[in-house]
Amino acid sequence: MDIDQQIDAALRQAVDSSLDEKTPSGLAAAIEHAVFPGGHRIRPRICLAVARAAGTNTPELAMAAAISLELLHCASLVHDDMPCFDDAAVRRGRPSVHAAFGEPLALLAGDALIILSFQVLAAAAASSLQRFKTLTELIGSSVGLPRGIVAGQAWECETSVDLDTYHCAKTGALFAASTMTGAAAAGVAHEEWLLMGKYLGRAYQVADDLLDHGGDAELVGKPTGNDLRLGRPNYVSDVGVVAANKKLRELVALAEQSIPDCAGRNELVAEVRRESAAFISLTTRSLEAA
Amino acid sequence: MDIDQQIDAALRQAVDSSLDEKTPSGLAAAIEHAVFPGGHRIRPRICLAVARAAGTNTPELAMAAAISLELLHCASLVHDDMPCFDDAAVRRGRPSVHAAFGEPLALLAGDALIILSFQVLAAAAASSLQRFKTLTELIGSSVGLPRGIVAGQAWECETSVDLDTYHCAKTGALFAASTMTGAAAAGVAHEEWLLMGKYLGRAYQVADDLLDHGGDAELVGKPTGNDLRLGRPNYVSDVGVVAANKKLRELVALAEQSIPDCAGRNELVAEVRRESAAFISLTTRSLEAA
Repeated sequence: MDIDQQIDAALRQAVDSSLDEKTPSGLAAAIEHAVFPGGHRIRPRICLAVARAAGTNTPELAMAAAISLELLHCASLVHDDMPCFDDAAVRRGRPSVHAAFGEPLALLAGDALIILSFQVLAAAAASSLQRFKTLTELIGSSVGLPRGIVAGQAWECETSVDLDTYHCAKTGALFAASTMTGAAAAGVAHEEWLLMGKYLGRAYQVADDLLDHGGDAELVGKPTGNDLRLGRPNYVSDVGVVAANKKLRELVALAEQSIPDCAGRNELVAEVRRESAAFISLTTRSLEAA
Repeated sequence: MDIDQQIDAALRQAVDSSLDEKTPSGLAAAIEHAVFPGGHRIRPRICLAVARAAGTNTPELAMAAAISLELLHCASLVHDDMPCFDDAAVRRGRPSVHAAFGEPLALLAGDALIILSFQVLAAAAASSLQRFKTLTELIGSSVGLPRGIVAGQAWECETSVDLDTYHCAKTGALFAASTMTGAAAAGVAHEEWLLMGKYLGRAYQVADDLLDHGGDAELVGKPTGNDLRLGRPNYVSDVGVVAANKKLRELVALAEQSIPDCAGRNELVAEVRRESAAFISLTTRSLEAA
């Protein structure tokens, strides 16, 4: 199995382990819809690549961290799409969860995925209880208060917001967790991996802004132009497409340079280049198609 | 400090630890409103009483488990009150969270409290990593799939439901977790404490049904008659007030009888009697006042 198949198999196992014959079928279907088929699975890919580069001896814990991140990402999309936030009817080229299953089940599916993300860590904890504790802390911080995803989302409810604080929380925190949890799952100092995650998060944000600003909805898998419609900040609106593309490449280069010394550094650099090339290609194709 | 003050102080510390100068103020206020002032704090009281009876040597871990349960209870109330579920404008004699702060912040406050409930466990994990793992599993099961609170809530979205399955998940699971986490925080076999928690949960459900069926809204702190209005099952509607009161007392007696052998058994029996007497008194006064 390649890494994408391994991630999907682990997600499948996690979701299936949370169901039994007494699970309400509507909620089970809503969760299935939220997680499968996925998007780029970029956060778990980063986590696993870092864990490999850092020479992990507990690959099952790294995989648990990877899918915990992905489940939380899925949960945040489900709740963000709901009518009281983005009111987005389409996600990944299909109806969003609330559009397909209604608001009550979308709300509960998000809740269930948040809970499952911590259960998944506990289920793999036996390989190292100390690392399990660190992973719970890192992942909790990346989604919780004061500076994780929920904080980022809550800035959308404030009358004024510092743009960097908003992006760091809403997008950056889970990317920073992707590199740091990879390191923590490998039992190495995770703080050194923060910077790489931050740059990757900012690169992703610029790519996302490029796609939303002028991307082709079909290639992106959801309606574009949301930032303009919802009055949200968008980097491309500020600096233009050319400068944003330049910034994206700069941030990827900075992410590469931030990789700490480790046994698999060269392979990880190559991996970051592959991942970012795929993203840059998507933004280019999407902008051309639009 | 008496036990209620200790619980509130620990909740205060947990909530404050999740805030800093970069926390969006709206979300911070919504979380404050969701947690303070509280209701009966009955789940953390049970957890702590069991941990004491089982002779815990890690009281800080027992307190972490206790407030984790209470944060999850608060989260479930916030999400249950939202327009897509109960659409309840009043809770604990005040506006519900979405009524006071709007749906977006209510949704996020519930999410943040779920995340915080796991962070709180990790913060106290150092006293025993193995117990921390067990607590994460027990608490995850009590709120997640397949049979925790989110499953209970999801049964309300199904066209047919087995009443016992519904109540076990929606109310019983967190009560069962209250006794089992108390035991697990004390490092004793938690399975033996399941039955006591189950009976307490059923007793609480009958008391809750009594209050909703004919209680005084002011004493109860929220509008009553919800079950009738929303077409929900209510035990009192089925068997009447007299039989329901008899059942409540029977269930409390069964809970007492289910307490496993432990050093503090007598004290725990006395505690269960005090707790249940307070509840039985509330139902009696509330029914008289209505």
